[in-house]
Amino acid sequence: MRSQPFTYELPLSGGLPSVWDSHTTRRLSSMKGQYLDQAAYETMLAREDTLLYEVYEIKRPEAAGELLQGISFIHPGKVGDEYFMTKGHFHQILDTGEVYYCLSGQGLMVTETPEGDTQVLEFRPGRVLYVLPRWAHRSVNTSPTEDLVFYFVYPANAGHDYGTIEQKGFRKLVVERDGQPTVIDNPRWKPG
Amino acid sequence: MRSQPFTYELPLSGGLPSVWDSHTTRRLSSMKGQYLDQAAYETMLAREDTLLYEVYEIKRPEAAGELLQGISFIHPGKVGDEYFMTKGHFHQILDTGEVYYCLSGQGLMVTETPEGDTQVLEFRPGRVLYVLPRWAHRSVNTSPTEDLVFYFVYPANAGHDYGTIEQKGFRKLVVERDGQPTVIDNPRWKPG
Repeated sequence: MRSQPFTYELPLSGGLPSVWDSHTTRRLSSMKGQYLDQAAYETMLAREDTLLYEVYEIKRPEAAGELLQGISFIHPGKVGDEYFMTKGHFHQILDTGEVYYCLSGQGLMVTETPEGDTQVLEFRPGRVLYVLPRWAHRSVNTSPTEDLVFYFVYPANAGHDYGTIEQKGFRKLVVERDGQPTVIDNPRWKPG
Repeated sequence: MRSQPFTYELPLSGGLPSVWDSHTTRRLSSMKGQYLDQAAYETMLAREDTLLYEVYEIKRPEAAGELLQGISFIHPGKVGDEYFMTKGHFHQILDTGEVYYCLSGQGLMVTETPEGDTQVLEFRPGRVLYVLPRWAHRSVNTSPTEDLVFYFVYPANAGHDYGTIEQKGFRKLVVERDGQPTVIDNPRWKPG
């Protein structure tokens, strides 16, 4: 890991960064149980383990004052009526926020607190989304054709708690209704 | 201060953000003793208290897991041969880093540790500069005509120590030599 200040290119139009330390790819198979239409999910998975999104990260030591940075590309597509989306997570250290800066594409960010407050924010190129500490967050690509691309920065000690969302789901889902992205209550959401 | 996740526009071309909580302006008079050519400084100041740079910040609580965000516009110009620049600072909590994302213009960032390591990074549109924890940093606009514009993110509890730099200066300065930005040792740098 770099021990001196450093730079890297991050195209303002939403292209690949010039360097990265990790490249994470999430495929359909890693989203088991997350999509509302389980039959559509199984049918789609039987055909191909589709690539849903990719994350490139610049690693830093997992210390409180360090900032972890990266860029995500969420590919366009749907499982049934539900758009391709990230797994979504709380931070393990709950009291840590996150900055997202949208570079390209369109989409929605679904957020919620452990207490049940929810809020949905809109991604647009040239817009910052600030996720407050304590809010779980999931990014959803609502474009039929384009990648949703954003830069993110968060405290390097934050950690990821994916388990809570994997078990309970988010309270809100984003589906297509009459050709439009629509936020609905998650009928499968499980308390506790 | 906002208690739910929020968004704001931050033009990728380097314009003003759509909202801010504070607008800081730094004029020549606030840089007393910082420029190498003191005579040029005094002459310029007698004529006009020129606006050197402006910072727009989105405030957050000064807590470890929060992220403070903002955008800086450093105007073009020189005091003698030395380019317009920010005051520069260490973070009060020394072990906190900072992300800079250059949106427009050109320039250099001068960095140094308390132990005397130095490094100079280059700003270019679409380039991220990561200032590691412990490194003081100052941004310098080397364009003769254009603003240097960058977005920044740092832990909201970091704080600013301007005093050390005000008293000792940076070990390196950026001046124009034969029409080119040139990094030189600061002949007035004071140890201890």
